[in-house]
Amino acid sequence: MDFHIPLNSYLQKYRYKYAALYHAIHDEIITGKLKKGTKLPSTRQFAMIYEISRGIVNQVYEMLTAEGYLSSEVGKGTFIIYERKPLEENKQKHTYNIRLSDWGERLSNLNHQSMPLTSALHNEKKCIYFKIGSPDLSSFPYEAWNRCLYAQIRETAIQPIEDMNHTRGYFSLRKSISLHLLKTRGIQSTPEEIVIVNGSMQAIALCSQLLINPKDQVIVENPCYKGIHKAIQAAGGIAVPMDVEKDGIQFQMDNWQSKLAFVTPSRQYPTGVVLNLSKRQKILEWANNNNAWIIEDDYDSEFRFKGRPIEPLKVLDHQDRVIYIGTFSKTMKTELRIGYVVLPKQLVQPFYHSKQLYEPHATGIMEQRALTSFINQGLYERHLRKMTRIYQSKHLTCLNMLKSKLSHLFSFNESDAGLHIFGKWLLSDIKYDVLKQKCGEKGVFWTDSTCMGLGNHSNKQHTACFGFSHLSTEDIKTGINLIASIGETLDFIHHA
Amino acid sequence: MDFHIPLNSYLQKYRYKYAALYHAIHDEIITGKLKKGTKLPSTRQFAMIYEISRGIVNQVYEMLTAEGYLSSEVGKGTFIIYERKPLEENKQKHTYNIRLSDWGERLSNLNHQSMPLTSALHNEKKCIYFKIGSPDLSSFPYEAWNRCLYAQIRETAIQPIEDMNHTRGYFSLRKSISLHLLKTRGIQSTPEEIVIVNGSMQAIALCSQLLINPKDQVIVENPCYKGIHKAIQAAGGIAVPMDVEKDGIQFQMDNWQSKLAFVTPSRQYPTGVVLNLSKRQKILEWANNNNAWIIEDDYDSEFRFKGRPIEPLKVLDHQDRVIYIGTFSKTMKTELRIGYVVLPKQLVQPFYHSKQLYEPHATGIMEQRALTSFINQGLYERHLRKMTRIYQSKHLTCLNMLKSKLSHLFSFNESDAGLHIFGKWLLSDIKYDVLKQKCGEKGVFWTDSTCMGLGNHSNKQHTACFGFSHLSTEDIKTGINLIASIGETLDFIHHA
Repeated sequence: MDFHIPLNSYLQKYRYKYAALYHAIHDEIITGKLKKGTKLPSTRQFAMIYEISRGIVNQVYEMLTAEGYLSSEVGKGTFIIYERKPLEENKQKHTYNIRLSDWGERLSNLNHQSMPLTSALHNEKKCIYFKIGSPDLSSFPYEAWNRCLYAQIRETAIQPIEDMNHTRGYFSLRKSISLHLLKTRGIQSTPEEIVIVNGSMQAIALCSQLLINPKDQVIVENPCYKGIHKAIQAAGGIAVPMDVEKDGIQFQMDNWQSKLAFVTPSRQYPTGVVLNLSKRQKILEWANNNNAWIIEDDYDSEFRFKGRPIEPLKVLDHQDRVIYIGTFSKTMKTELRIGYVVLPKQLVQPFYHSKQLYEPHATGIMEQRALTSFINQGLYERHLRKMTRIYQSKHLTCLNMLKSKLSHLFSFNESDAGLHIFGKWLLSDIKYDVLKQKCGEKGVFWTDSTCMGLGNHSNKQHTACFGFSHLSTEDIKTGINLIASIGETLDFIHHA
Repeated sequence: MDFHIPLNSYLQKYRYKYAALYHAIHDEIITGKLKKGTKLPSTRQFAMIYEISRGIVNQVYEMLTAEGYLSSEVGKGTFIIYERKPLEENKQKHTYNIRLSDWGERLSNLNHQSMPLTSALHNEKKCIYFKIGSPDLSSFPYEAWNRCLYAQIRETAIQPIEDMNHTRGYFSLRKSISLHLLKTRGIQSTPEEIVIVNGSMQAIALCSQLLINPKDQVIVENPCYKGIHKAIQAAGGIAVPMDVEKDGIQFQMDNWQSKLAFVTPSRQYPTGVVLNLSKRQKILEWANNNNAWIIEDDYDSEFRFKGRPIEPLKVLDHQDRVIYIGTFSKTMKTELRIGYVVLPKQLVQPFYHSKQLYEPHATGIMEQRALTSFINQGLYERHLRKMTRIYQSKHLTCLNMLKSKLSHLFSFNESDAGLHIFGKWLLSDIKYDVLKQKCGEKGVFWTDSTCMGLGNHSNKQHTACFGFSHLSTEDIKTGINLIASIGETLDFIHHA
C-alpha cells in the first residue's frame, strides 16, 4: 500500500502519541501529500506498522473524521475525502455578503501587499537584501540581555506581579526613558507623559484614530512610511502629501488646511534629509496658530556618525503640541516590540484610554522590566555606543561603494546618520525594472521606495533604499558589485 | 542644613552615579519631601557629604535646572523652585481646547473608573479581596513554565527569529490551540482561522471596530462584562441589553434589530448561568436569518467541576457566523497576555488586517513560543487538570460557606464551573452599602457587579461576585465569616 507518514519526527515534537499521530496525518493531508481518495490502513494494520496502540489510532481516525478529512465506508475502509483548495476558494464556502463597519471597509480596501520578496527570503538560496531598519543581530549582546530576562523571569516566580495596571507601561521603564531622552535628545518629560507601546506603529495608529475624523486632511511627507498612510486612511482621513526637498518637507503654509501633521525631522523617512531649524520653527508656529498637533517620529536618529543633531521638535515645542514617538525595536531587535510616545499633557489621558481599550493589561511586561534593568545598568548606552561604531563603518563602506559603483544609476542622499541610504533612479523606468528583476534573479534585493507615501504610480520616480545595518561588509560589497555589473548591461536596452 | 537624600539605595539601583543622584534628588522633589524654596548644598559641599565627584553633582544640578526643578542665583546658591501640584492642575498648563476625533470623544466620555479599591490593595494592611478571575499563582508551575521560557530565550540567541510576520500569532501555537479546542471543546478549526491576541479584550475591541458602525444596535447580555460596553460605545454602537434568566439570555427575537450579539453561553458573565441548548439553536437561527454575527466569549469554561458542558455555539454553528474568543490569561496567569479568536472564514482577512494596523509584528512572540512548547509537552493539560482539582475544592468551600452563612443576605447562583460565585442582594440598598463599607473597613472586599452591563444606576439591583480562585481556603472562610458577623448587625439599621 502506497502510504507513509513521517511519524517519528512528530513523536519527538509532541509528548502525547495521539497528538503526534494526529498532526502527522493532518499535515500530510493539508499539504496535499496524501491526496483525496487515498485509502488509509486499517487501524489494526496501522497499529502494527507504526508500533502504536490501536486505541490511539482509532481516536485519531475519529478526530480526523470529525474534522471532515476522513470518511469510513463499512467493509471498504477509511478514505481521505479532503481535497486541498487554495485558501481563497475555502473562504468562499459561505457566500453571504459580509458586512463590515465603515472602518472595516476602509481597512479592507487598503493595499495590503506584504514586504517584497519575503518568499524569496524563505527559500534556501542565499540572498543579499538591502532592507530597511533591520538591526545587526550578530553584534547583539545576547548574554547581557538574556541575563536581564532570566532575572525578571526568576523574580516574577518569587514575587508575582500583583499590580497589573501597567497599560501605560512599566513605571520604572518610563522613568528611565525620560532620563535617557533628556540626556541624548534634550527632551524634558515626566514618566506620566510617556506611554509604552508595542512598537511605534501602535502609537501611529492610535494617534490617528484619536485625532482624525473621516474627511479630515492630514499633512504627510512625500515619500513617507506606508504605515502612516494606512493609519490615516483607516481613520477615514485624507493624506495631503508634501514633497521633501534638501532641507526637509516643503510647504506653503496657506495650503495646510489641517489640524495634524506627521513628520520625521531628524532624518526624513525614507529620504534621510534633515529638517532645518527655521522650518522646524515654522512648522511649530503653524501648529500654534492652527491649534494643530504634530506627530514627530524619531525612528532611528540614535545612530549618528558625525555632527550634532538639531533639537527635536519636541524640544523646541513650547506650546505642548508635539507627540514624540520613539522605539527600541530598531536599536535592540525587531522582535522586541517596545516603543514609546511622549505626549502633550492634554493627550495623556485620551491616549491612555485608547490603548487601554485594547489592552487593559500591558503586553510583554516581563520584557519591559528586563529592558528597564538593561538601561539602568548602563548596558543600553554601552550597546548604543558599540552599534554606532559598527554601523558607522558599514555606512561608510556602503556609501562609498554606492557612490563609486552606482552613481551613474542613482543619485544618492548623503547623510550622517541612520541605517539606510536613499537613492533616486536616474535612467528610464524600463531600465529600473530590468535591473531590479535581473538582480532579484541573482539574489540581490533592495527596498524599492518608489511607491512609499502616496502609493499611486502616476508620474512616479523610481527610488531605492539601501539598508546596510544587518549586512556584513562583504555582503555589502558583493551586493553592490553585482548590481553594478548588471547595471553595465543596461546600456544595451532601448527605451520603450 | 536640613537636607538629606537616600542616595545609597539609588546607588545600588543605578550603575551610573549621575543617574542615581539624579533620581535620588528628583524623587525627593516630586514626592514633595524636598519643598519649594529649599536650598541645596553647594556642589562642593554636596560632593563632600555624599563622597561623589563634584563634576557629577554639577551635571545633575544642571539637568535638574534644565528640567525646571532647580534654579541658581549667583552668590545665593541653588534652590528648589518646583512646587508639587496634583496632576490635574499640571494638565491645565495649556488650556487651548483640544480637538479629538469622534472616536476619541466617545472614548473620553466613557466612565473610566478603575477597578474598585486598588488603593486599598496597595496599602500594607492585609485584606481579603474576593475578586474575579485571578488565577491561583501559589500553584503555578513556575519551574516548568520558566524552563520553556529559558529554552526560547536561548534559542533566539542562537537562531534569531528572522520571519517577523507573526501578526496572526506564532503558527505552531495556533496549530496547538486548534487541536486543544478540538479535544476539549469539540471545536473544529484550522490554524488559518485562528488569530492570537494580547488578551481577549483586544479581540472584543477589534471585532467591535470591525463590525459596528455609529448608531448600530448590538445585543448584549445584562449584566455583562464592562469591557464589551466600552468597545461598543467606542465604536459608536448602541448596546441593547437583554436580561439574563436561569437558562441564559432572555429574548424576543423580533426586538433584535441588530447584526451583532455578544454572548457568554458556557457560563454567563458574571451570573454564571448556562445558555440552554434550545436557546443556543435559536440564537444561531437568528444570526442566519438576519445575516448577523455572534461573538462567543468562552472566558473560563476550562474549569468545570462536574457534568459535561453543552457544545459551544461555535460547534453548533454550521453557517460560519460565530466568532469564538478564548484566553490563556485566566488559565495560566494574568500577566501572560495571550488570547485567541477563532474566526469565520470571511472574517479572517479583515480581522488580520485590523490587528496588523496596530501590530505589524507580533508582541510577546517569545512567550507565544514558550506557550507552544508548554502545550506540546503536555504540560498545559496537566496544569489544567491540577488547577481544576484545586479550584474545585475552593469552589466547594466557598459555595458551602456562602450558602450556610450569607443566604439571608444574598441569593446565590450555583454552578458547576468557573472561578467566582454570583449572588443577588436580598435586603435594602442602604443595608448593602453599609455592609460593603463596614467590610471594607475590616479589609474584606468582593467584586460589586451592581453596575456591570448597563452601567446606569436606575432601578439597579445590587449583585456581588465572590471570586475565590486566588484565595486560600482559610482566607475564604475568614472572609465570609467576617461578612456574616457584620451582616448580623444590619438588622438594627432602619430603612431610609
